[in-house]
Amino acid sequence: MDKARLVAFNGHGQPMEVLTKEIPTLHNGEILIKNLYTTLCGSDLHTFCGLRQEKVPTVLGHEIVGEIVAFSETHHQKDYLGNELNIGDRVTWSIFSSDPDSAMAKIGMPQKGENLFKYGHAQITGNDALHGGLSTYCVLKTGTAVLKISKAIPLPVAAIINCAVATVAGAIRLAGEISGKKILITGSGLLGMVCAAMCKDAGAAIIHSADINAQRLEQAKAFGANETHLLTDVSSVLPAEIDIAFDMSGSADAMENSIQKLATGGTAIWIGAVFNTRKVQIDAESVVRRLITIKGLHNYNFEDFVYAVNFITRNHQVFPFKKVVSKEFDLLSANQAFEFAVANKPLRVGINLKHHG
Amino acid sequence: MDKARLVAFNGHGQPMEVLTKEIPTLHNGEILIKNLYTTLCGSDLHTFCGLRQEKVPTVLGHEIVGEIVAFSETHHQKDYLGNELNIGDRVTWSIFSSDPDSAMAKIGMPQKGENLFKYGHAQITGNDALHGGLSTYCVLKTGTAVLKISKAIPLPVAAIINCAVATVAGAIRLAGEISGKKILITGSGLLGMVCAAMCKDAGAAIIHSADINAQRLEQAKAFGANETHLLTDVSSVLPAEIDIAFDMSGSADAMENSIQKLATGGTAIWIGAVFNTRKVQIDAESVVRRLITIKGLHNYNFEDFVYAVNFITRNHQVFPFKKVVSKEFDLLSANQAFEFAVANKPLRVGINLKHHG
Repeated sequence: MDKARLVAFNGHGQPMEVLTKEIPTLHNGEILIKNLYTTLCGSDLHTFCGLRQEKVPTVLGHEIVGEIVAFSETHHQKDYLGNELNIGDRVTWSIFSSDPDSAMAKIGMPQKGENLFKYGHAQITGNDALHGGLSTYCVLKTGTAVLKISKAIPLPVAAIINCAVATVAGAIRLAGEISGKKILITGSGLLGMVCAAMCKDAGAAIIHSADINAQRLEQAKAFGANETHLLTDVSSVLPAEIDIAFDMSGSADAMENSIQKLATGGTAIWIGAVFNTRKVQIDAESVVRRLITIKGLHNYNFEDFVYAVNFITRNHQVFPFKKVVSKEFDLLSANQAFEFAVANKPLRVGINLKHHG
Repeated sequence: MDKARLVAFNGHGQPMEVLTKEIPTLHNGEILIKNLYTTLCGSDLHTFCGLRQEKVPTVLGHEIVGEIVAFSETHHQKDYLGNELNIGDRVTWSIFSSDPDSAMAKIGMPQKGENLFKYGHAQITGNDALHGGLSTYCVLKTGTAVLKISKAIPLPVAAIINCAVATVAGAIRLAGEISGKKILITGSGLLGMVCAAMCKDAGAAIIHSADINAQRLEQAKAFGANETHLLTDVSSVLPAEIDIAFDMSGSADAMENSIQKLATGGTAIWIGAVFNTRKVQIDAESVVRRLITIKGLHNYNFEDFVYAVNFITRNHQVFPFKKVVSKEFDLLSANQAFEFAVANKPLRVGINLKHHG
């Protein structure tokens, strides 16, 4: 078998470097994947810009889609749902591997289990290097949920399933019944777009999207938003009597504003706040008297991941997911890809890996 | 039939006055109750002290137990659970009447339904005066959940069922599974005591109670607390890795402190914050990364009310509920009862109405 090529990140301010690595012998339960496409997630950009620290050298990229090249000898060749897996199948996999017997896994939060391993976040140590999206190959560890997907799903759309789409699926689960509800989504990045589309798909009565960027709000309409609210426009007032407010922005202003707009019995779901910001100021009396619920979510569980695959399988042509990646680079241009993403803040930048390997 | 005597509240700083009122003809669906015992809740004291405004004149007191004197002609003579009701039966009733067809009632929050009526909070208008606990009679309106209770339950214990006990039952419902969980309860007033007892009854692994009052913490132990934490003691550190934190204090400090002590996936239930205080400062990133849930609750629904009756029926001798009322007054001494309660802050002061009427 040929060797793997990967792009290693050595720390903020240093150009990423191309490495060539042997493909290791698979351990029990592992699968070797040829990566086909990787999209750059916001947290990849945070690491690249030094806003987030990872042990280096590392291989960034965790929104990945690929195809199966080899199984370890003892692999049962079934995916998470029990579908048969064969060499050449296209698959998506959970961004983490987790011990299914851990206490957190047993309460439905495998993403917080003990001995968690996260793709695209781990240090390269010797031959253990094939664990990120900026690489021609990836080794899937045991405890990773693998799902077979249709080859009809365009690669840039398939790549976002295991992070953006699955995380929003978790938010939808936490929100409970969506059908007939009034929805507010603050933050119209990719999470906000997926959220609008999922709420539309689930029968929301009305979907309000709010952002500080007018162009993003235009895109949100195509993803299902009925009404948009430009937050830099002082005349823009967020709608009241909202049943479910999703915050995808991480902005304290947005979270405070949304809670005030909830109807009695309403729920706020926070998933955007994955970076340090000022404290959110909460009027506890109002939360009590209005029976408000606030739920934080980070990553997702395997039920959410299955929901995400099914959602994209049904809807990849219903909403303009094909346009999520605004520019595509090859692996050797990974530095330029990050620089373009940081400078232009598109929903996603893609790394097309099909012709490498 | 004889006339009713009641004590009317005319506003903060004015002594309450004794009035005599005709017993009105019952409307369809109404029940006439002879009040037997009323306990003074914290919100009664807030109104008495001018910290909370109600339309006056009003009849305070909503934690009431009584017995049935008469039914309106069309009454079906069944309680909320379908048990047969007869004259002379001892009953407790929801602190509110609510339209069962309102949108809020249909989503499990009848306490926030349209045209809500709350006992002990309404203005006396003409002959419509028998709607509080500081009265020898009370007229139960349609939309009130009435539950028959055992005469073996001491009157002071039966009186607290429909406010303190039922509200905590609502908090327990929101908390989900209690069995095997690590519990923290901030605030050891009556709500905190009931909460400790309910968590014990529901099989909590450990119950931590925290308060600024050492004597209250001693009482909390008798209600099931395993560990107590005096918050004025600078060496006292709240325990970590808490699964469910109940705040009964309404203190922003307590709510902030509790959230920090939650384990990943933990839940904070707020019910104490029914008064204005400083904003609670929340670290949204921590709420997101630790998958924290915060739920506010005000009052309770009918399912909670049934749970409360069942809980007290099973446990009124298991925990020292008999000691909740530290001093008893008669109706004509209602002014002294309030003054005693405000000055001494016992868990409850009782108004014994058995010998009036």
